Amino acid sequence: MSGVWGKNIQFSIFGESHGVAIGGVLSSIKAGKKLDFQKIDVEMKRRNHRAFYSTNRNEADLYEILSGVTDGVTNGSPLAFSIRNGEHNSKDYPNLNMLPRPGHADYPACIKHNGFNDYKGGGHFSGRITAPLCFAGAVAKQYLEDYGIKISAHIKSIGNVVSDKQMPQEYDSELSNRLFDEAFPVIDDAIKEKMFSVISEAKEDGDSVGGVIECAIYNAPAGIGSPFFGSVESRLSELLYSIPAVKGVEFGCGFDITKLRGSSANDMYATDGEKIKTLSNNNGGILGGITNGMPVVFRVAIKPTPSIFKPQQTVNLETMENEELLLKGRHDACIVPRAVAAIESCSALCFLDMLCD
Amino acid sequence: MSGVWGKNIQFSIFGESHGVAIGGVLSSIKAGKKLDFQKIDVEMKRRNHRAFYSTNRNEADLYEILSGVTDGVTNGSPLAFSIRNGEHNSKDYPNLNMLPRPGHADYPACIKHNGFNDYKGGGHFSGRITAPLCFAGAVAKQYLEDYGIKISAHIKSIGNVVSDKQMPQEYDSELSNRLFDEAFPVIDDAIKEKMFSVISEAKEDGDSVGGVIECAIYNAPAGIGSPFFGSVESRLSELLYSIPAVKGVEFGCGFDITKLRGSSANDMYATDGEKIKTLSNNNGGILGGITNGMPVVFRVAIKPTPSIFKPQQTVNLETMENEELLLKGRHDACIVPRAVAAIESCSALCFLDMLCD
Amino acid sequence: MSGVWGKNIQFSIFGESHGVAIGGVLSSIKAGKKLDFQKIDVEMKRRNHRAFYSTNRNEADLYEILSGVTDGVTNGSPLAFSIRNGEHNSKDYPNLNMLPRPGHADYPACIKHNGFNDYKGGGHFSGRITAPLCFAGAVAKQYLEDYGIKISAHIKSIGNVVSDKQMPQEYDSELSNRLFDEAFPVIDDAIKEKMFSVISEAKEDGDSVGGVIECAIYNAPAGIGSPFFGSVESRLSELLYSIPAVKGVEFGCGFDITKLRGSSANDMYATDGEKIKTLSNNNGGILGGITNGMPVVFRVAIKPTPSIFKPQQTVNLETMENEELLLKGRHDACIVPRAVAAIESCSALCFLDMLCD
Amino acid sequence: MSGVWGKNIQFSIFGESHGVAIGGVLSSIKAGKKLDFQKIDVEMKRRNHRAFYSTNRNEADLYEILSGVTDGVTNGSPLAFSIRNGEHNSKDYPNLNMLPRPGHADYPACIKHNGFNDYKGGGHFSGRITAPLCFAGAVAKQYLEDYGIKISAHIKSIGNVVSDKQMPQEYDSELSNRLFDEAFPVIDDAIKEKMFSVISEAKEDGDSVGGVIECAIYNAPAGIGSPFFGSVESRLSELLYSIPAVKGVEFGCGFDITKLRGSSANDMYATDGEKIKTLSNNNGGILGGITNGMPVVFRVAIKPTPSIFKPQQTVNLETMENEELLLKGRHDACIVPRAVAAIESCSALCFLDMLCD
Repeated sequence: MSGVWGKNIQFSIFGESHGVAIGGVLSSIKAGKKLDFQKIDVEMKRRNHRAFYSTNRNEADLYEILSGVTDGVTNGSPLAFSIRNGEHNSKDYPNLNMLPRPGHADYPACIKHNGFNDYKGGGHFSGRITAPLCFAGAVAKQYLEDYGIKISAHIKSIGNVVSDKQMPQEYDSELSNRLFDEAFPVIDDAIKEKMFSVISEAKEDGDSVGGVIECAIYNAPAGIGSPFFGSVESRLSELLYSIPAVKGVEFGCGFDITKLRGSSANDMYATDGEKIKTLSNNNGGILGGITNGMPVVFRVAIKPTPSIFKPQQTVNLETMENEELLLKGRHDACIVPRAVAAIESCSALCFLDMLCD
Repeated sequence: MSGVWGKNIQFSIFGESHGVAIGGVLSSIKAGKKLDFQKIDVEMKRRNHRAFYSTNRNEADLYEILSGVTDGVTNGSPLAFSIRNGEHNSKDYPNLNMLPRPGHADYPACIKHNGFNDYKGGGHFSGRITAPLCFAGAVAKQYLEDYGIKISAHIKSIGNVVSDKQMPQEYDSELSNRLFDEAFPVIDDAIKEKMFSVISEAKEDGDSVGGVIECAIYNAPAGIGSPFFGSVESRLSELLYSIPAVKGVEFGCGFDITKLRGSSANDMYATDGEKIKTLSNNNGGILGGITNGMPVVFRVAIKPTPSIFKPQQTVNLETMENEELLLKGRHDACIVPRAVAAIESCSALCFLDMLCD
Repeated sequence: MSGVWGKNIQFSIFGESHGVAIGGVLSSIKAGKKLDFQKIDVEMKRRNHRAFYSTNRNEADLYEILSGVTDGVTNGSPLAFSIRNGEHNSKDYPNLNMLPRPGHADYPACIKHNGFNDYKGGGHFSGRITAPLCFAGAVAKQYLEDYGIKISAHIKSIGNVVSDKQMPQEYDSELSNRLFDEAFPVIDDAIKEKMFSVISEAKEDGDSVGGVIECAIYNAPAGIGSPFFGSVESRLSELLYSIPAVKGVEFGCGFDITKLRGSSANDMYATDGEKIKTLSNNNGGILGGITNGMPVVFRVAIKPTPSIFKPQQTVNLETMENEELLLKGRHDACIVPRAVAAIESCSALCFLDMLCD
Repeated sequence: MSGVWGKNIQFSIFGESHGVAIGGVLSSIKAGKKLDFQKIDVEMKRRNHRAFYSTNRNEADLYEILSGVTDGVTNGSPLAFSIRNGEHNSKDYPNLNMLPRPGHADYPACIKHNGFNDYKGGGHFSGRITAPLCFAGAVAKQYLEDYGIKISAHIKSIGNVVSDKQMPQEYDSELSNRLFDEAFPVIDDAIKEKMFSVISEAKEDGDSVGGVIECAIYNAPAGIGSPFFGSVESRLSELLYSIPAVKGVEFGCGFDITKLRGSSANDMYATDGEKIKTLSNNNGGILGGITNGMPVVFRVAIKPTPSIFKPQQTVNLETMENEELLLKGRHDACIVPRAVAAIESCSALCFLDMLCD
């Protein structure tokens, strides 16, 4: 289904980049949760922070809660919220629907919707629509706290610059808090400058770069998920792939596990007499689609944002002639850091949903 | 949902490896389709062929259709089928539920089901349960033929041996037919021997190896799928991750797209005045969650099968003591070639479902 | 699922009677439909008209479209809308959550939500939440017009006053237009005064009355629906029973069909050589869960609104003592006429959903 | 969805009356439940008992469990079962697909499935398909026993003979056990003979009669269900209307509540200091879509079975000429008593599903 996600909780998302408002409805969440709005604000800002790699666009993402909360506490009815869009300079998007931008959704959206799609600013396909996702994720995270579940992510790579650090196998509150507070969360600070250079160079060239985000979900109990259609991997990847720009999702060692032999890939069990752990976590905390008590670890590939300022070849859908396209306007040179909050939000929503199974 | 998948068509799967029968129910498929049972038989055999890397287990996977077909033609009611399990030597599986096999679902399944899971042969978590998936996929493929949609896959890598070939950007019937007919489908025959060596060596060591499968869906029209929760990537990955052993799914260039700049990653449009194509297909035929008319291309990481014949460390769940485990029985040294049919089946089911949107 | 309905289209509803706003999100509707907002306004007014039997409450139900519409035309992305709530005099609702009103949802809602439900004005359980339903229904009706499908309803009874008229077996545009235009739609004008008397008397007594609404869906083609879980009756009744106050739904002759013999109940087929019809319509246009081309006819029982001004016995949930409750405020003496638009809306949404099967 | 029902548990149903087998798959039920197969047998027999009003057809409805049960205990994986169909005399069904039987699904099924439906014996539309429903219901009942929830039903009317008894407001184990044991369950034995007469007379005339079944669900805790789309009435009616022949469903007083004033319809609360009850149960244990702790009471209208032995008017779909149809074969004169087990099964499945919310 296009606009609604979830089995036990349900999340509807709506909005176009240059429409009246974007927002969402989060249904079937438990009544009685006192929401910490400051935390929600922080999450919204994590997605929408300003930096040298982002646009100067001033969209404060001020949300208004329309229902579902009474005196700051969830009341059990659907939690609806909206974020008003600001004014937009439509001059920057002339006739774009007839000149589809390479790498963007313009062309397939136009085909799917017979040309009636709202193409301005990407419409419903804009990365801006991840703002409601982050709001919902911020709420979900607060519910997960009651279970002791923590979610943390870092930037694993930008372009060819790959960090050799990975999320630790035990929750490290100091690290996770630091990653949470940073606009550009990397485990090894030394790598940050290299990543910045890659982005700066691309920006100077009017180009863009992508990267990989690694995320870990800590303290999820063993036994969550299901075999086959309800596997943790199925449910997480389904939601992660709803984020525009995601082109790869892998769990544990992911694609690299194919280069291991079974004897190395298998995570051996060990106990101290009380708890059971695995000595490695090549399977990313999931076996047979079910959590095994180890951190759920996955990586997500974020493609370089397709909005670039170089001439690109496209086709005029009206005249059916080849044309050159030169984009104007303001565009991020790298959306990876902004995507971190969205990735964490998907994780939070998905685990909240699975915990209700 | 654990046992049921699909929005417009629905597929229920059931069975345990050593139970009475495995099978499935495929609902909401159109009436009037004359099924080619020979083709179904071939697909079943592709999943269950015998080779040096597979077990000598003789399970013919003879299916019986219980409903939904009248005189060889679908009648519009749910198509139910079952595959009887053969006799099993339970001696090979002594007390396994208390000695979880590393890399297998044993431990999380035991936690989830409070020890009541059928652990023999992996139970419902066995790769054997992909047989019903392949049956359903074989049916779905026949429906897709009416749309001209073709699905084809090859083995991209086994362990560290990686083929530099990839699925072509146009449907090549000769190649696809050859890949379909081969038990071990590779584009470049030269690489096959190298791959075989890797498997043989692992087998001799009582070990196992994994690999990567690349799949292409040809002739899907532009405009299929949806943004966000109904993206083609969401729906395909959800289903692909239901196959046990899958630990990674990537589309187009996948993780490698993060190493490209936007100017290289963007697929430029071009026309001959009639048709619109992209000059590259880094996005794997999907933009904004919707097909763009190019082949949908993705890769799936298959982990080395966890059943190995080396001593492994585990925990006795009864005594809560560390123990060494030595598996007996018959196990594949490599399940990658057998997984090809399952990957194609997921693709077929998913596209049939999306075409009904 | 509580807050979301639909298979092919999805409708999320939100809001509390005295919260910030009520509204909804209608997803997966086709792009390219030019909406007639005047018609939507009329539907909203049908639900919220003023009459001697209704309150003087002035809630104009002004909706704002937040997304999904560009230049008055649906753009294919989720259509979100909200209706701001006016100011409310909370003095009329003192401590109601601890003194559950008989016949209202107060008590079970309090149990379900651990006392955190927003009880003011009925919260999410208020009949006011049918306003978003009517908005969505008004949109759905406009889509159905493209299929030639018409929906029409009349008040069959108020209290003991039962009209002996029924919806005709052929679409009668004159009648349907008249019913649509009337705030209190009855086929036989003579009965209206009797019904008014019943309501007036109840109102004078500080009491309330219920009634039955009969609805017909015309021009739906044969072949819509499914046997078993997807029967037209299943899908319609599921949605109709989401309207608060509905306690009965019957199709065709409904409960009276149990008093007929098969020979009378069976609708015989007849043809003029071109079209096939049935000579009666005791089955309400549905056989085996599927439309047969005759009008789909059903009746819905609306209970007397539980808000009355007589002393009622209740229990103080805090003190666990029996108490007498005397309601104040403004309440309709009869909500049946206002429910007509909601019933029609459910029909429209449901058939739009089923047509996409 | 046609072939699958349920949110937290999922039930797939399959089969045609004269096909190979009928059956179902019950997914996501908890592992560890020791099944009492004798009880399941009894339920199957309740649906398929023999009496003067039923056919002499000998279909023992012997089920085989294919998966989901190990050593008599549910193992957490989908519980699949099948019931083989016996041999059928197809001579009794000559060319029926071209001569649709009035009151049967033949015509709409033929339209929906383009003539490819399996029409023999009603195919997938046969009442025989309620056998899998009763199996699943028998399993669900055993799960509900752990919650103390009891389901009981009686025949409220046959044709014009209406019992003035109703299900008591407290669970009466003696009565419920007696009703369960009787093939023709009525509260007041005196009425049974009158009902039998009505059936006998119809049978002698080659005709059929319908009736009303009243069902009560006892000991369901307050707080189950949801407002709007997830109301108890929505979910129960959706499932009840999947039973072929059901044309009406009403809760509590149902349609008669429309004849009451609010002051009579409202169920007043009262407490003994510990428990809260209502002094009447006009709302059938449901307020605002949520249980209030009183018995959930509803009635279902079962139409007279359309299979009669009188000449009926139909249309030859091939020649498009009016024709007279005279049915042969064996058909029940009254299916109401056989439907009791199906009604109870729907209740059990629905409450099991809602309890997992």
